[in-house]
Amino acid sequence: MSVLVVGSTALDSIKTPKSENPRLLGGSASHAAVAASFFSPVKLVGVVGDDFPKRYVQLYKRHRIDLTGLQVVPGRTFHWSGEYEANMNNRRTLLTELGVFETFSPALPKSHRDAPFVLLANIAPSLQHHVLDQMEKPRFVAADTMDLWLNIALPDLLKLLKRLDAFVLNDSEAHQLTQEDNVFAALKKIHKLGPRFVIIKKGSHGSILSGPGGFFICPAYPLHKVVDPTGAGDSFVGGLMGYLATARGPIQTHVRRAMIYGSVVASFCCEGFGLLRTTRVSRKQIDQRVKELERLTRF
Amino acid sequence: MSVLVVGSTALDSIKTPKSENPRLLGGSASHAAVAASFFSPVKLVGVVGDDFPKRYVQLYKRHRIDLTGLQVVPGRTFHWSGEYEANMNNRRTLLTELGVFETFSPALPKSHRDAPFVLLANIAPSLQHHVLDQMEKPRFVAADTMDLWLNIALPDLLKLLKRLDAFVLNDSEAHQLTQEDNVFAALKKIHKLGPRFVIIKKGSHGSILSGPGGFFICPAYPLHKVVDPTGAGDSFVGGLMGYLATARGPIQTHVRRAMIYGSVVASFCCEGFGLLRTTRVSRKQIDQRVKELERLTRF
Repeated sequence: MSVLVVGSTALDSIKTPKSENPRLLGGSASHAAVAASFFSPVKLVGVVGDDFPKRYVQLYKRHRIDLTGLQVVPGRTFHWSGEYEANMNNRRTLLTELGVFETFSPALPKSHRDAPFVLLANIAPSLQHHVLDQMEKPRFVAADTMDLWLNIALPDLLKLLKRLDAFVLNDSEAHQLTQEDNVFAALKKIHKLGPRFVIIKKGSHGSILSGPGGFFICPAYPLHKVVDPTGAGDSFVGGLMGYLATARGPIQTHVRRAMIYGSVVASFCCEGFGLLRTTRVSRKQIDQRVKELERLTRF
Repeated sequence: MSVLVVGSTALDSIKTPKSENPRLLGGSASHAAVAASFFSPVKLVGVVGDDFPKRYVQLYKRHRIDLTGLQVVPGRTFHWSGEYEANMNNRRTLLTELGVFETFSPALPKSHRDAPFVLLANIAPSLQHHVLDQMEKPRFVAADTMDLWLNIALPDLLKLLKRLDAFVLNDSEAHQLTQEDNVFAALKKIHKLGPRFVIIKKGSHGSILSGPGGFFICPAYPLHKVVDPTGAGDSFVGGLMGYLATARGPIQTHVRRAMIYGSVVASFCCEGFGLLRTTRVSRKQIDQRVKELERLTRF
């Protein structure tokens, strides 16, 4: 079954103390779509300007991503520029040029409206709503978010939560949303806002699922060196949704394994700038790391 | 088989925004010994003053802890006082009165010298050395430490590392010792300093083992509310050593499960001030949480 992914499609310029990487393919939808493509057919919904490099269109195509929903409009592609500190934990935004993203309205091609799995990757909650408004009874809807929307679009986000099956956010966002320091107390409060499945991402500490089957403590794959964590969270949720879309039977039966797959794709994402490492990964390499995670957590 | 535990035996006065808890039984050896006592016979080595409450001696005895090695000398028992912030993550020391601990020299009774399992709980590395000097070929020696010793007794600690089978420290101490932000990179460097088994504790994020069998990602038991984390790390390593001492065959076969048991005892420790919760726990309750952790991590 296919996954519809909507989110940002951007050019990321990523600076570290050791290197500069200008205008890499980035954005929440790019990372999530590529991650999901290892498992399922993906339909991408987004917008780019007429400066969008052809090689990035080719990259999407190599991952067999359906680009019918990718609008190409006159103007400049969304450009984000950020700088990481030596430890790769702290980053600051140097520049955000919205470009064509400023007036983006995700209009869904007819062929996209019956997609069973919908991933509302990080983007303004109003646009996430707009996508859902056009869908015909999707089977499973998940959304990611970021601190910005908690700050400037909280009412929209709270309304969105009531329309979701799964909500994915990181620990600091969970704290911001619930005023709870304790992850498990925060999960409980977020369920009350709507979603049956809530996943809190904790970076290198893994992630926690709370769902109808109880909690699941999902490990992060051990990395000795993080090259660039940009897009890791998007890769996680993309891999998760891609895997879920292939699985038969109730979501609940597969969601843990789906998180493990998401976690593994995210680990590859961190090993290169932008999507450089992820795009060179094979399904076999992903399966190997999943097996390794089994060995690393068994007791 | 029995576990010899040496460390601090103290009175802890713990303040939180909601309550004050004066002169609780505390200290690294108290927490570790009680934790280990759920699994194995324990011999405690420490020192207290003549002000040490009789009820705490009774508490040790209820846990069948051998007190032959507990010196009771004229003077005041080591007293630590600290205050936690509302989120229970940040604490500051209000007062440290070393008392009889200032001149403590752990002299081992003859009956203690052939203990197969030795836990050098957090205490000055020079005292940890002094205990090892008196031991007759212990089977397995583990040590814990704290940032203070990295700051003021690093040469002693580095010498100690060459005498250990297992070294346990938290993530910020691992960073301080190796200058590595990455836990897995830090583990590699710490092995080069001596120990075959290295465990990095990450509080509510669990712990990571690196040993001859590779890595193990050990979860923390999910707690919705932390009452007092004081002694959780000591309980973890105490439970771990207590469990190891009961297991037959190579350490490597049991060390993962031992960490899980340590993690569970630490979770109980966090649910009450000082040792108030831990001392009311049954082995059955511990086994239940271990089973629950199996369910929480299976995929």
